[in-house]
Amino acid sequence: MTLRHKTSLFIDGPFFRNFIIGVIIFNAIILGLETSDRVMAQWGSVIYALDTLCLVIFVIEIVAKLFAYRLRFFASGWNIFDFVIVGIALIPAAQTLSVLRALRILRVLRVVSAAPRLRRVVEGFITALPGMGSVFLLMALIFYIGSVISTKLFSDAFPDWFGTLGLSAYSLFQIMTLESWSMGIVRPVMEVYPYAWVFFVPFILLTTFAVVNLLVGLIVNSMQDAHHEEADAATDTYRDEVLKRLDAIERRLSDKG
Amino acid sequence: MTLRHKTSLFIDGPFFRNFIIGVIIFNAIILGLETSDRVMAQWGSVIYALDTLCLVIFVIEIVAKLFAYRLRFFASGWNIFDFVIVGIALIPAAQTLSVLRALRILRVLRVVSAAPRLRRVVEGFITALPGMGSVFLLMALIFYIGSVISTKLFSDAFPDWFGTLGLSAYSLFQIMTLESWSMGIVRPVMEVYPYAWVFFVPFILLTTFAVVNLLVGLIVNSMQDAHHEEADAATDTYRDEVLKRLDAIERRLSDKG
Amino acid sequence: MTLRHKTSLFIDGPFFRNFIIGVIIFNAIILGLETSDRVMAQWGSVIYALDTLCLVIFVIEIVAKLFAYRLRFFASGWNIFDFVIVGIALIPAAQTLSVLRALRILRVLRVVSAAPRLRRVVEGFITALPGMGSVFLLMALIFYIGSVISTKLFSDAFPDWFGTLGLSAYSLFQIMTLESWSMGIVRPVMEVYPYAWVFFVPFILLTTFAVVNLLVGLIVNSMQDAHHEEADAATDTYRDEVLKRLDAIERRLSDKG
Amino acid sequence: MTLRHKTSLFIDGPFFRNFIIGVIIFNAIILGLETSDRVMAQWGSVIYALDTLCLVIFVIEIVAKLFAYRLRFFASGWNIFDFVIVGIALIPAAQTLSVLRALRILRVLRVVSAAPRLRRVVEGFITALPGMGSVFLLMALIFYIGSVISTKLFSDAFPDWFGTLGLSAYSLFQIMTLESWSMGIVRPVMEVYPYAWVFFVPFILLTTFAVVNLLVGLIVNSMQDAHHEEADAATDTYRDEVLKRLDAIERRLSDKG
Repeated sequence: MTLRHKTSLFIDGPFFRNFIIGVIIFNAIILGLETSDRVMAQWGSVIYALDTLCLVIFVIEIVAKLFAYRLRFFASGWNIFDFVIVGIALIPAAQTLSVLRALRILRVLRVVSAAPRLRRVVEGFITALPGMGSVFLLMALIFYIGSVISTKLFSDAFPDWFGTLGLSAYSLFQIMTLESWSMGIVRPVMEVYPYAWVFFVPFILLTTFAVVNLLVGLIVNSMQDAHHEEADAATDTYRDEVLKRLDAIERRLSDKG
Repeated sequence: MTLRHKTSLFIDGPFFRNFIIGVIIFNAIILGLETSDRVMAQWGSVIYALDTLCLVIFVIEIVAKLFAYRLRFFASGWNIFDFVIVGIALIPAAQTLSVLRALRILRVLRVVSAAPRLRRVVEGFITALPGMGSVFLLMALIFYIGSVISTKLFSDAFPDWFGTLGLSAYSLFQIMTLESWSMGIVRPVMEVYPYAWVFFVPFILLTTFAVVNLLVGLIVNSMQDAHHEEADAATDTYRDEVLKRLDAIERRLSDKG
Repeated sequence: MTLRHKTSLFIDGPFFRNFIIGVIIFNAIILGLETSDRVMAQWGSVIYALDTLCLVIFVIEIVAKLFAYRLRFFASGWNIFDFVIVGIALIPAAQTLSVLRALRILRVLRVVSAAPRLRRVVEGFITALPGMGSVFLLMALIFYIGSVISTKLFSDAFPDWFGTLGLSAYSLFQIMTLESWSMGIVRPVMEVYPYAWVFFVPFILLTTFAVVNLLVGLIVNSMQDAHHEEADAATDTYRDEVLKRLDAIERRLSDKG
Repeated sequence: MTLRHKTSLFIDGPFFRNFIIGVIIFNAIILGLETSDRVMAQWGSVIYALDTLCLVIFVIEIVAKLFAYRLRFFASGWNIFDFVIVGIALIPAAQTLSVLRALRILRVLRVVSAAPRLRRVVEGFITALPGMGSVFLLMALIFYIGSVISTKLFSDAFPDWFGTLGLSAYSLFQIMTLESWSMGIVRPVMEVYPYAWVFFVPFILLTTFAVVNLLVGLIVNSMQDAHHEEADAATDTYRDEVLKRLDAIERRLSDKG
């Protein structure tokens, strides 16, 4: 047994998996404590040291996996995910840019790739996405058209809300979620353009209807998957049985004929 | 082969279809750039020229289709849709009225009529509508009654919200979406009319219940369509098979009898 | 044929039904016009006269129905509904109290009892209610408990929101609809009672979960009703056919035995 | 028949059950009246006495049940629930701490454990929970990650909203419910950090998508339970019948062979 084979066995074993999940959770707590000024004032250096230790363990894990699987490592989306998450922390600037430092907490997401049950839920989410592709495209279209129209019409009077395509898209997203759409946005706009509701009310109806269709699509798909998985097993057994019996009867009848 | 026949073949071919989709997307980008003051200051005349070029291509496309299909052109709802969308831009006033100029972006919707997958999604939406006709009628009734009552009761004290039937309908639509219904509208109204909640709370419950029923109807319909399409195919094959076999057995029995 | 029988035939005929629907719609428009000060200034007396005419027609209709059906008239919930709606307008005070005057618009709801399709939708709504009785009772319980707790805890500091059981129930209803629950209510409350979220966040989760369960119950019920109505018809026919054939085969075999 | 047996028969009988439900409802009204300052000024001592009477009855009920069932009493979750609810009122401090006093109203929840129909609804809710465990875990993960990131990035500029992990979690919960997320929180944040939407918009999409998946899961589960319970009964009967008949035919054929 080569070292590579041994490594591969050890990595795939339950001990190593549980150890890594433990490190991830420990790292999550460390990164949570980092947000407390009081804790950092007293234990700052210890916290940093423990965080670095966790990072070292993660790097060793990935190096070991790369050694064991070679390029097959990159065949799994989850491995690539782990690789990127850990890699972010190794960028030199990562220790200075506050945004990159904050992103270190994304390492907690590794618990999803490590725990099979969570992994399956996320994979379920992701497989549901392609079926909704057309509706997403349509939504993007509605948002683009809505942004261009609202920028053209309202950018002069309301530069903060509809000054550019980006600001309009953000405002329309807010309106789609129905947050303060009337009191906050449309009523003030209607004081300048009394017919603004002709644009906004249909926009709300359209996007809400599209979201509802996404939801309906999701429900119908899940239902069909669930239906296929189990109900059919019993039905198939029964149907095969009936046809087999009918065959037998026919055969007997022709034997005697 | 007549010229008309040739045109028809060319128009229905994949090359022409993809070319038109390309022009639509290019036009969408052009119209998006038009919203940027900085871009317009530098490249304004180029942008306008390219927009006009796109419009010319669309007009040629429609003229070619009219030549190829004659009056059958108007048999398809999508063709009428394209015709109106492009036609708007040819109204003389369209270059001066800002609203009509803004509507040019609706041309992007032509991508829906050109891309079969999006077309099917939209057709799915539209076929779902008639089944919801009765509930829509009921909603309209509730809104009309609600508007008349709220105008009668609250127009004197709150002319901005309930001054006319139209203002009341808009306010009730806002209340139905639950946007600031209490802090923004009903609490202030209740300071003048302490029993206003007797009108508004049932209104919210009623409209929410009607919307929920729309949703339930949509889900049940989609589910049945999905159910019919596939599950029945296997079942029908099986059932036909069983009945055929039973026929065969019976026939054999009578042959021997 | 007695007069009573003739009246009954006339009332149930399509002409009378459509005439009444026409009067209802005409009355709805009249009552809508009444909300406009400008229209009333010019045409006030005409509007009032036409409204009275509609009322007279409705009274005649009900008297005719009472004559034709006698006490069976009150056997139908829809008839009682019509009787009450029309009756309101005949209360002497109805011409002076603005609330009762505003309620006259409820007559438009008579279009529901007159148009069979709308009637079926509303009957569908109503038959769905009893199945949700237990969840409604539970919601009432949660609201009562929530109102008592919030009144006890917060009435001193926030008398406008939680001063009495009624005010608390209204505020909790607003919180359940998620309208300004945090920025408008809970954040201000938390400035006085920092642990107020311990009450409000679970309240939101509980009520939302109960509402979701209502929705799920509605969907499952509708689905089953739809499933039973049609799929079973074909299945039943097929199953009867198979059993009949098997019977025939068995009988033939025993005849020969 | 021992006294213990007699007690057990009496406790399980309909008379005792209805009497306890009556006391619970009476106690609920008493506790509701306690919130009214006017009532308490006049009838305070009576109200307190009646509340104590109810408590005494509940204590006797639990003592009787303990006597009748001994330790089996604690085998039912509902009994433990009753025990804790009544026990709270017996803590000495309970008469002085306003929070514990307010919790006495939770006794009304005992009506759920006493009324079989409500009990079944609540048990239905609770059995639905484990199936959603993975999605809840994922939500907790998203909230923890979101809280750490938002505390790290925004705590300096917005200490009231994102000062600590707890405040951030509360603010993110508010954002997930879409309450004032844009006008109240994200727009102010974007004035300091213009790219804040890069964090908040995906957070909203993710959590909404997770909630939608919870809902879809609930619907699919309920549907399958409902499907199994009834549709299968008829189908199973039919299938057994068909197989029995086929058996009979085959046996007859072999008898004759």
